[in-house]
Amino acid sequence: MSRIAFVNGRYKRHSDAVVHIEDRGYQFSDGVYEVILVKNKNFIDEKKHFDRLDYSLTSLDISWPMKKNSMRQIMQELVYKNRFVTGIIYIQITRGVARRDHSFPKGIKPALVMTARRLPKSNDGDIKSGVSVITIKDIRWGRCDIKSVSLLPNVLGKQEARNQGAYEAWQIDNEGFVTEGTSTNAWIVSSHGVLITRGLSNQILSGITRLTLIKIATELNFKFEERQFSVDEAKSSREAFLTSSTSFLTPVTQIDGVVIGNGAVGLLSMRLLQAYHQYINSSEI
Amino acid sequence: MSRIAFVNGRYKRHSDAVVHIEDRGYQFSDGVYEVILVKNKNFIDEKKHFDRLDYSLTSLDISWPMKKNSMRQIMQELVYKNRFVTGIIYIQITRGVARRDHSFPKGIKPALVMTARRLPKSNDGDIKSGVSVITIKDIRWGRCDIKSVSLLPNVLGKQEARNQGAYEAWQIDNEGFVTEGTSTNAWIVSSHGVLITRGLSNQILSGITRLTLIKIATELNFKFEERQFSVDEAKSSREAFLTSSTSFLTPVTQIDGVVIGNGAVGLLSMRLLQAYHQYINSSEI
Repeated sequence: MSRIAFVNGRYKRHSDAVVHIEDRGYQFSDGVYEVILVKNKNFIDEKKHFDRLDYSLTSLDISWPMKKNSMRQIMQELVYKNRFVTGIIYIQITRGVARRDHSFPKGIKPALVMTARRLPKSNDGDIKSGVSVITIKDIRWGRCDIKSVSLLPNVLGKQEARNQGAYEAWQIDNEGFVTEGTSTNAWIVSSHGVLITRGLSNQILSGITRLTLIKIATELNFKFEERQFSVDEAKSSREAFLTSSTSFLTPVTQIDGVVIGNGAVGLLSMRLLQAYHQYINSSEI
Repeated sequence: MSRIAFVNGRYKRHSDAVVHIEDRGYQFSDGVYEVILVKNKNFIDEKKHFDRLDYSLTSLDISWPMKKNSMRQIMQELVYKNRFVTGIIYIQITRGVARRDHSFPKGIKPALVMTARRLPKSNDGDIKSGVSVITIKDIRWGRCDIKSVSLLPNVLGKQEARNQGAYEAWQIDNEGFVTEGTSTNAWIVSSHGVLITRGLSNQILSGITRLTLIKIATELNFKFEERQFSVDEAKSSREAFLTSSTSFLTPVTQIDGVVIGNGAVGLLSMRLLQAYHQYINSSEI
């Protein structure tokens, strides 16, 4: 299936979509990205994604390559050109192309790459049966709040999960608390029925689905605490799940081989997921 | 000045040297690199660089894109095509091109990019007068022994140094000890005349110039200790310097504005540099 990408001002066939070898994204991971869910041609939580993109760019002192409105038009065009109504938009912005030198080059334009595609695969199966996660030491850098392409530790963690037949790896800080998954946020429902996810800091990414679910849970009057939780607390929790723009809310039924709750997908998780689906389906541009 | 690069099997004009947007080096910083000094067409410490490249590749489970001998031939050809006798070769190997997914793709070829150029600029001035460094918190990930392109914290640290008018930033671990610079290793000569540099671990890169200088210092019967040193010890040291394949041995005469020794380039540093130059000039392929 041929796909169309947007690369530095031009629409390109996927096979011809290239960047220069001295793009600083390639040599220094000097760039940021976003993945936005497209549902019935609507960009879900678009404003939150743009706000986070702005935060990432500002944190790295990279300027916007174009106005948000222009970017939105390209996103719409990409959905049209790639002939889908439900899928994802991937946006990557790097500091641009410059002769290799660690420090910031002056007077160069940021590079912008955008791709669009149908969702990789349906995760209905994972959602119905739940997934297993392993735990690994969090060895990432100190600014995980920036959604940068400096993702090598995340790649290694995800692969470690795959090697062990798991869906995701939850990363553990030096104090034994769960930070987050390698590409998802981590949640539990305590034995007292309290929904819990870690608070924002430099150690985790402010997930958009995480933000939306907090809002939904509050509206549903769920008991909710934004705080850190240990691996032990997670293993003895009633329910657990992970969230991201592409995995929505995916129940976790095993952590390091320990069965969570009764091993089935939790009721609170399912209620949240239903409410999230309602939210997505009612979203309008 | 037009330059020639080697990109995935072909020699390309620099302006046409491109990689695919889904090269995992671009989207995940899933790759490694080496910078090799070329002096009178000799590749300085070639074996050590290849050994380290092998270590980095093995650590990430990326296979060699071709045999070392073939790579050496391309390096020679690049020096010839770019018409210099003294300069640097940059080698980057990534996991290759694949549909975006954190975990390792199966059955893809690693990507190989090589560039060659004259040394960016003479650093004779820096070596004669010395440079200043600042200290910053080391916020990098837990596998700095792998020479990966996941260099965003290094980029930010180097820029912070530039913003403060310094040449380099020395990174400080949680216990107050110097790990290394953002692209160089850190050394001091204690008040007792002992040459000191931090020992190898996951926290620093095994610099090739560092290895060579340890060998030289031992041959010269210098008092040498491979151990960690604090910022305070560095600031009260007699001499300080930094090393890398492109900055050789560059004296440090100020740390966070504190003058080191009497503010002039140290005698032991200069003896080491002379010996290093002899070593380079006597190297043969």
